[in-house]
Amino acid sequence: MTTTRKLKLGAMLHGVGGNMAAWRHPDAVADASVNFDFYKQQARKAEEGKFDLAFVADGLYINEKSLPHFLNRFEPITILSALAAVTSRIGLVGTLSTSYSEPFTVARQFASLDHISHGRAGWNVVTSPLEGSALNFSKTIEEHPDHAKRYRIAAEYLQVTRGLWDSWEDDAFVRDKASGVFFDPSKLHRLDHKGEFFSVQGPLNIGRSRQGQPVVFQAGSSEAGKDLAAKEADAIFTGHPTLADAQRFYQDVKSRAVAYGRSADDLVILPGIQPIIGRTEEEAERKYQEIVNLVSIELALNYLGRYFEHHDFSQYDLDAPFPDLGELGQNSFRSHTDRIKKEAREQGLTLRQIALKEATPKTSFIGTPERIADLIQEWFEGRGADGFIVGTSIPNGFNDFVDHVVPILQERGIYRTEYEADTLRGNLGIPVPVNRYVKQPVNN
Amino acid sequence: MTTTRKLKLGAMLHGVGGNMAAWRHPDAVADASVNFDFYKQQARKAEEGKFDLAFVADGLYINEKSLPHFLNRFEPITILSALAAVTSRIGLVGTLSTSYSEPFTVARQFASLDHISHGRAGWNVVTSPLEGSALNFSKTIEEHPDHAKRYRIAAEYLQVTRGLWDSWEDDAFVRDKASGVFFDPSKLHRLDHKGEFFSVQGPLNIGRSRQGQPVVFQAGSSEAGKDLAAKEADAIFTGHPTLADAQRFYQDVKSRAVAYGRSADDLVILPGIQPIIGRTEEEAERKYQEIVNLVSIELALNYLGRYFEHHDFSQYDLDAPFPDLGELGQNSFRSHTDRIKKEAREQGLTLRQIALKEATPKTSFIGTPERIADLIQEWFEGRGADGFIVGTSIPNGFNDFVDHVVPILQERGIYRTEYEADTLRGNLGIPVPVNRYVKQPVNN
Repeated sequence: MTTTRKLKLGAMLHGVGGNMAAWRHPDAVADASVNFDFYKQQARKAEEGKFDLAFVADGLYINEKSLPHFLNRFEPITILSALAAVTSRIGLVGTLSTSYSEPFTVARQFASLDHISHGRAGWNVVTSPLEGSALNFSKTIEEHPDHAKRYRIAAEYLQVTRGLWDSWEDDAFVRDKASGVFFDPSKLHRLDHKGEFFSVQGPLNIGRSRQGQPVVFQAGSSEAGKDLAAKEADAIFTGHPTLADAQRFYQDVKSRAVAYGRSADDLVILPGIQPIIGRTEEEAERKYQEIVNLVSIELALNYLGRYFEHHDFSQYDLDAPFPDLGELGQNSFRSHTDRIKKEAREQGLTLRQIALKEATPKTSFIGTPERIADLIQEWFEGRGADGFIVGTSIPNGFNDFVDHVVPILQERGIYRTEYEADTLRGNLGIPVPVNRYVKQPVNN
Repeated sequence: MTTTRKLKLGAMLHGVGGNMAAWRHPDAVADASVNFDFYKQQARKAEEGKFDLAFVADGLYINEKSLPHFLNRFEPITILSALAAVTSRIGLVGTLSTSYSEPFTVARQFASLDHISHGRAGWNVVTSPLEGSALNFSKTIEEHPDHAKRYRIAAEYLQVTRGLWDSWEDDAFVRDKASGVFFDPSKLHRLDHKGEFFSVQGPLNIGRSRQGQPVVFQAGSSEAGKDLAAKEADAIFTGHPTLADAQRFYQDVKSRAVAYGRSADDLVILPGIQPIIGRTEEEAERKYQEIVNLVSIELALNYLGRYFEHHDFSQYDLDAPFPDLGELGQNSFRSHTDRIKKEAREQGLTLRQIALKEATPKTSFIGTPERIADLIQEWFEGRGADGFIVGTSIPNGFNDFVDHVVPILQERGIYRTEYEADTLRGNLGIPVPVNRYVKQPVNN
């Protein structure tokens, strides 16, 4: 470990949080997922805590059984653009699917966000796990592609997007008023991409920002997902139940990156955590139980069904062993459903036990601020993570993290006390990609 | 004319303005089209002037001959979302094409902007005049559709979008913490649209805003465009050389709206103007000449070519009569190219004359603030317009309009001195559309 390695932190902006019943808590802001003041407060709080980034997840299909915070929520590009105007240092990262969009539009929107924010944009590339998405998008796609094809599409999509982002070299816009030369034509490049899935001419009608290109996140943890991330991504948003799992993943993906000729440091691995913080261990446990008690078994079964192509679990005996689901769950959240099936089998759990466990999984990141800081440090120094994306379903939980955990991390010298840079790449410590068309990189 | 009829004003946010050489002016902000501080200053200035809305135009194709402010500019959804966070009353209207996008995505992004801005969003529906756009979008479309088909697509697209916007009734989100009821399932509606061009299930994953639905603008002035606007739009962005032309258009479109069973007042007609303001007539004329002198004949020919499918006009004798172009220009900016051909024929103009005239057309809205106010009042009271969208290529020209023309309009009692409402619909004086699924409108 070098002495300069510093922990990275992201804030998951997710309405009241990922728990399906969190909105019911007496202290919860029930309409948080469409409340701009709530988002603004959270983003500014994260910036106060010197967070690298705020992260907005997404989905393209709902039905009447979807989780409350999925039913009615901000679209990522719009909310991140709005937050760009009321923050100054924090990165702004949003999920957008490569299965149901056009690379020209997505390249433009993220590039525009990158200019508006002066170099703080990031794109979390996903392929849309939900089958139902295809029902809402008839033009870009006929039917929901299978897992392997989605990743082939994503890889080509990313190539196109990165190509469009390089349409203009960094010094292309001369803007010489006297001569009337607005740009140098030798520094404008047409992509002329023709591939298996896309045919895109370019150029893009917006130039590169101060960080060159928006930061690319990847969030899949399947083999195809890990491979795409190792090859193409700047950062990975992941999740692991134990440090050992996280270390295996970390080692695996970093090795793949090196095999692709990259530096392991240029790929930042950020597991998501949902810390529950109390002044005492007992207070933290009580906060957890408050949330658990708000979840009904009906809600828990609905939630479980989402991972298995909206399978109806109410047909089974709740207290019998977890049912055999055959191939269900293979085309959607595969790494997740494989784990559930494995745990049910190995630990002999019932449907009720699995459902409630999945609905409100007990995080190991629970306890006093010191306890949370210890765990973060352990994962970070143990190379299970380069940092974390912090979300929480506990009312005021995020503020508690910034007010009480961040100062401990700073005191221990593993986390910044001031931003190192004013771009997202700068703070994450990853390089600005040289424009692909530049023969002689500018000397700097 | 009723006494309550008030002038509406929009601000065209367009970098340094629509003139190709405006960026060369010594006082121009040459990078304005990607300068967020510039946009923020303009939007806030417009809000200071009690403008109804700020308007951001768009295009989906550039090449090396495109106008400077088209080459490198903000994407509308992102810049409008950012402006939403730093303004509080002004409407935020952006152009987005129905030919190269998915209704689910576009419905979501405008709905999300509408929530972020608390009911100030508007969508200018266009069908993309530029042939080249198809080269950048391989998924949503195979080839650029002809004019008639583009309008058939647009009409169905708008139907789908409006349907998605009504997915949730206004009181669908109950959020009753005690009972755990987040929403009333009887107030959630799936669209299940299957049409000629689109098949979209829904529901949308965001509810209606305070103004019900984003305001719909339409900008085409062809027969198909006028018809779509009369049937579906809340507002029209148009442009006319003379008051008589404007009156004909106004009368035509309002009559069509009435024929569709609508109230003429529910469709707001806003021609674009590019006023040039001086303390004296001579100062205004001098400002115009400063801009004219910055345009070269090469630039002017390029610009003209854009209206005729990027036709190369440099092959002709500049001082011979305007060439016969046959069918060129019929599938793009048709109303515009028809007018150019007609003027060339009737007035016997040369290519040089046409090119320079089109590059920097001399607006009739030129002169002292009183003169501009007189013209505005004449057009408004003469039913050539319900208001105007004000853009200008003169440095500081927009500030001059707000500082010097607006007070005159206010003094004359034809323009507001304070916002009437805090939604765009409220200020434009157009109704909130009742959700299509509501049987008994809520009593209010």
